[in-house]
Amino acid sequence: MPASPIRKLIPYAEKAKKEGKSIYHLNIGQPDIETPEVMLNAIKNNQLKVIEYSHSAGIESYRKKLVGYYEKYHIFLDFNDIMITTGGSEAIEIAMMTCLDEGDEIIIPEPFYANYNGFGIQAGIKIKPIISKIEDGFALPPVSEFEKLITPKTRAIMICNPGNPTGYLYTKAELEALRDLVQKHNLFLFADEVYREFCYDGKEYFSVMNLKGIEENVVLMDSVSKRYSACGVRIGALISRNKQVMSAALKFAQARLSPPTFGQIAAEAAIDTPESYFKAVIEEYVARRNFVIEALNKMEGVFCPMPSGAFYAIAKLPIDNADTFCQWLLESFDYNKETVMLAPATGFYSTPGAGTDQVRVAYVLNLDSLKKAMKCLEEALKVYPGSTLGKEATAKSVSA
Amino acid sequence: MPASPIRKLIPYAEKAKKEGKSIYHLNIGQPDIETPEVMLNAIKNNQLKVIEYSHSAGIESYRKKLVGYYEKYHIFLDFNDIMITTGGSEAIEIAMMTCLDEGDEIIIPEPFYANYNGFGIQAGIKIKPIISKIEDGFALPPVSEFEKLITPKTRAIMICNPGNPTGYLYTKAELEALRDLVQKHNLFLFADEVYREFCYDGKEYFSVMNLKGIEENVVLMDSVSKRYSACGVRIGALISRNKQVMSAALKFAQARLSPPTFGQIAAEAAIDTPESYFKAVIEEYVARRNFVIEALNKMEGVFCPMPSGAFYAIAKLPIDNADTFCQWLLESFDYNKETVMLAPATGFYSTPGAGTDQVRVAYVLNLDSLKKAMKCLEEALKVYPGSTLGKEATAKSVSA
Repeated sequence: MPASPIRKLIPYAEKAKKEGKSIYHLNIGQPDIETPEVMLNAIKNNQLKVIEYSHSAGIESYRKKLVGYYEKYHIFLDFNDIMITTGGSEAIEIAMMTCLDEGDEIIIPEPFYANYNGFGIQAGIKIKPIISKIEDGFALPPVSEFEKLITPKTRAIMICNPGNPTGYLYTKAELEALRDLVQKHNLFLFADEVYREFCYDGKEYFSVMNLKGIEENVVLMDSVSKRYSACGVRIGALISRNKQVMSAALKFAQARLSPPTFGQIAAEAAIDTPESYFKAVIEEYVARRNFVIEALNKMEGVFCPMPSGAFYAIAKLPIDNADTFCQWLLESFDYNKETVMLAPATGFYSTPGAGTDQVRVAYVLNLDSLKKAMKCLEEALKVYPGSTLGKEATAKSVSA
Repeated sequence: MPASPIRKLIPYAEKAKKEGKSIYHLNIGQPDIETPEVMLNAIKNNQLKVIEYSHSAGIESYRKKLVGYYEKYHIFLDFNDIMITTGGSEAIEIAMMTCLDEGDEIIIPEPFYANYNGFGIQAGIKIKPIISKIEDGFALPPVSEFEKLITPKTRAIMICNPGNPTGYLYTKAELEALRDLVQKHNLFLFADEVYREFCYDGKEYFSVMNLKGIEENVVLMDSVSKRYSACGVRIGALISRNKQVMSAALKFAQARLSPPTFGQIAAEAAIDTPESYFKAVIEEYVARRNFVIEALNKMEGVFCPMPSGAFYAIAKLPIDNADTFCQWLLESFDYNKETVMLAPATGFYSTPGAGTDQVRVAYVLNLDSLKKAMKCLEEALKVYPGSTLGKEATAKSVSA
């Protein structure tokens, strides 16, 4: 399995730290937000004497309580439609192994979450990317473009909504267009909706689970990691109303015995997280987002569409190569002994050469840190040897 | 993926419970022993505010402390030789994906832990079984038998020591024979040693990690599940001195982000479990083993070799078919409204037709329950319609 561009940066970050540089980590979706107290207390107050395997599909009381959680989003489920997984990661892994055979194809709009590649390799399937454009704010590509990619081997389409790494929130109309396509070609529709709590500006999240007519085709991957800032509990869920899918998925779940017990205890308690927690968190993310996107767009030669969800944004920078730039930030740049770590967008595209002038910014730090991080980036772009600012101007004047 | 014989029994067990029968569960390796207090306290006293991802290879302080744990077994490691996994299950899964390519072969003495099949299917590799005989107490088959199975596709040999489901403890001589074989054909040697704490009668556990000359070939899979009766924490480890293996394994680990944080906290604390805990646990298991094996061998037509490790035994019963018998125990038999659930050994063999008159007994219940369970089994064998007792006698008298 090839190393992703972001992972290649890790040794440079470690070296920079050893040299005494402070790094603002905007490279990973690890929120700094505190985990809800109800979760932490459930762990502290647990009275277990033997930490046993749970049911392979997860603790029944948790699955039943999750039914109530989804009802708040008008997603009506039976608890048997829900299988608890070890993080959203495992939900994706099992869904791919369950619904696709060796060599089958899945179409995914890119840029997409880089680890989909790893899970695809593990499942022996082929990811066919379809480009969504930064100029369109990463809206869904036209259905006609999807149709061009469909072959007899195509088994599924996968989306992430709201999107990592784009922050794009699909509209109901876009999802209905996907529904028609999925229905026409009898495909699975996989949706990674782990950021549903993070929708901004009054825009509404619409779940694929509520698309009429493709109830048997839809597979939802979920996770409590981002929702409750509890990435380390490793609790996710695989959800489908397709009983054959759930029955086959259970066999993979049984082979690995059970999801983590403590994580499930915390996640079950999390369902009682008060609304005030989310209100405060969302206010915080909106303030961060507004600041970051405005700061980015003010920098010369930078373009960053306004995301409506999640806590990521993809920005186009005036640079020759995002991998080189992100490495240079760690290796050769500092501003008052500080620098910033970004994710090169190349890791989120599987079309060769795509995203070379783009980076992903995760606004997971507090406003004060974000201000300093954006100042670093601004100063860095002024002195980066691979800047295309001058060159672009030259190119323009030459062609003029 | 096909359902294993033991899983096919689950609906019958559920039905039996609904009908008011008590079931003695000797079918699964879920010990009733209490988890050490140091583990439970570490969880209760944790002061985390944000449950973050850990390092993909596990929390560094835990890996460093594990070095000391292994030293007690004279296994000398660098903490970078250790990668923390989500249970032993994930260690096996990642080892197979890392060291074998699609279509490669791994030789495993059978009967073997049934889930190896599932992981093999997931990794797209082929398991070639080599039979170890109940009459020999499941000793290692002769090296010459292994050599018959080696093809250009063979990449690894895998053992479980002490063994699940056999309880067999390999001798140093057997392991050295394997070492020579592995060296001769340049294969990987995978060893699942999760039961190392459970060795009886003064017999010594010898780790594959201490076989000289194949340091780069050996991959160890470990787990805290059985050692500390903490199956639900889902913490295991993948260990190798082969840096290429560890580096490739890390990429799979990075794709799934990290092992569970709470489990790692508990597992790190577990290293301080006092020796008195293990002493008491081992005394308990020895008493259970002695009782169960003696009780089994006293029953007419039953043969069960004395295991030297783990907490399982494979018994040969005077029955036509273990799957049918185990189902019948749940569906059609009771003794004072009680019955016993056993694992048909067919699930532990991949050679068709092997193990049809064998069951695995996990002696994971207290002595009192084991006594009642053995009584149930004894009575069941007297009335089971598919008993071969009479028939064998007839066959013998006919052939005489």
